[in-house]
Amino acid sequence: MKVADPACRSLGISLESVTAGHARLRMRVTGEMLNGHGIAHGGYLFLLADAAFAYASNARGPVTLAHSAQMTFLRPVAAGDELVAEAVERARYGRNGVYDVTVHGPAGEIVAEFRGQSVTVSGRPQERAPEAGT
Amino acid sequence: MKVADPACRSLGISLESVTAGHARLRMRVTGEMLNGHGIAHGGYLFLLADAAFAYASNARGPVTLAHSAQMTFLRPVAAGDELVAEAVERARYGRNGVYDVTVHGPAGEIVAEFRGQSVTVSGRPQERAPEAGT
Amino acid sequence: MKVADPACRSLGISLESVTAGHARLRMRVTGEMLNGHGIAHGGYLFLLADAAFAYASNARGPVTLAHSAQMTFLRPVAAGDELVAEAVERARYGRNGVYDVTVHGPAGEIVAEFRGQSVTVSGRPQERAPEAGT
Amino acid sequence: MKVADPACRSLGISLESVTAGHARLRMRVTGEMLNGHGIAHGGYLFLLADAAFAYASNARGPVTLAHSAQMTFLRPVAAGDELVAEAVERARYGRNGVYDVTVHGPAGEIVAEFRGQSVTVSGRPQERAPEAGT
Repeated sequence: MKVADPACRSLGISLESVTAGHARLRMRVTGEMLNGHGIAHGGYLFLLADAAFAYASNARGPVTLAHSAQMTFLRPVAAGDELVAEAVERARYGRNGVYDVTVHGPAGEIVAEFRGQSVTVSGRPQERAPEAGT
Repeated sequence: MKVADPACRSLGISLESVTAGHARLRMRVTGEMLNGHGIAHGGYLFLLADAAFAYASNARGPVTLAHSAQMTFLRPVAAGDELVAEAVERARYGRNGVYDVTVHGPAGEIVAEFRGQSVTVSGRPQERAPEAGT
Repeated sequence: MKVADPACRSLGISLESVTAGHARLRMRVTGEMLNGHGIAHGGYLFLLADAAFAYASNARGPVTLAHSAQMTFLRPVAAGDELVAEAVERARYGRNGVYDVTVHGPAGEIVAEFRGQSVTVSGRPQERAPEAGT
Repeated sequence: MKVADPACRSLGISLESVTAGHARLRMRVTGEMLNGHGIAHGGYLFLLADAAFAYASNARGPVTLAHSAQMTFLRPVAAGDELVAEAVERARYGRNGVYDVTVHGPAGEIVAEFRGQSVTVSGRPQERAPEAGT
């Protein structure tokens, strides 16, 4: 499946599955994604997880934005590694949602754990001030 | 000042200042950084903040990695906007550090707030398992 | 099962089950646990979840401490409500662990979601500086 | 100054100062606040910080609740220690706010760093579903 948003498309992220409250995305770490220590920049691991969070939380219909998110880095990731991010809705109440995203490395090992807090809005995100993000 | 790491260099991020426990980075949001809502992908805001965190925490010398990080998204960011991320060390004890990074938009307004937890390691990050990331 | 630690004991928290990587605790919200809005103080919801996290992460044997934790508040809780916190290990690598704790209200509804990052240490926590907490 | 809410009052927490966007609270760690490792339970450190967050964010007038919060534990705290939590508003936009709370030990050392995300509501918290907490 092809992703529709510019950020994911330009990074070669592919959308493996998306249903209400769930999404799985895949990304290959390139040499341009490395940090000063020669391993994948935490920012790209976050971006992949955040994208999975966005697809999972928007799959229900109404525009949903990221209010906040948290990530724990567990293992270093090398250039060439293919990562899979799996997002699952954990809780939802009123306008608020909580999503967990696990980022797996090539051997299925967990490289990072992400948790995102979403907020459902009406209207277009550009016109809304209070909450924004993904 | 030019950034040395591949991720920041390829995104055109510039390093405006870096001293022990402090760093300021600048990034221009391009069309390739947008999400499906037409605003800057939260992942790129995080990446910029995370990079500032990495420069500030590594400026003291010993290799310092991201253990975890959290971000709150406050305002949407448009393509073309120039962002400035300012990282400041908040606390440090033993191997652990806490850093705050504020991401400012073109008019100086706060668009996101980031907090990172660092861990100082010895040796090269590729050889270390427990903590990794930025 | 009776809890052994002073904090849980004095609050009447009961330990319903504990195995490696898992724990379930129960607490009744008293009038002394309310905040200025007349609902349960978020600090007590956190304390219950944090205690479940501590039991689940220490069940394996070696001393494990809280490095950091994050909580999302979803529903208000009233005095008299009985809460159940269920902690599950999500990932573990090297000395680091990630645990999720869901706090349920009387009808089983989710009132809060907690995520904790643990670190396993050797020796007694009083003698260790770097990480401490729960 | 005396605190008005049951949770703080029953724990002997005193309110040293409160102005719009700022609050300072003090608490003495008792033997009933210890965890199984014989140090202060992380839940009580969080509760103190969360209370400071609540006073700082509600000082402006409209009812403000905790959406979520994150805490990093840096140093162990012993029974008898007197802690001071200092809350400062970091950013505010629309209904959302970000507050930092530093918890200091008896010698002024930092024992924990807290960050809270608030949401301003209208009406009484009991009647509101979406966000609740402190």
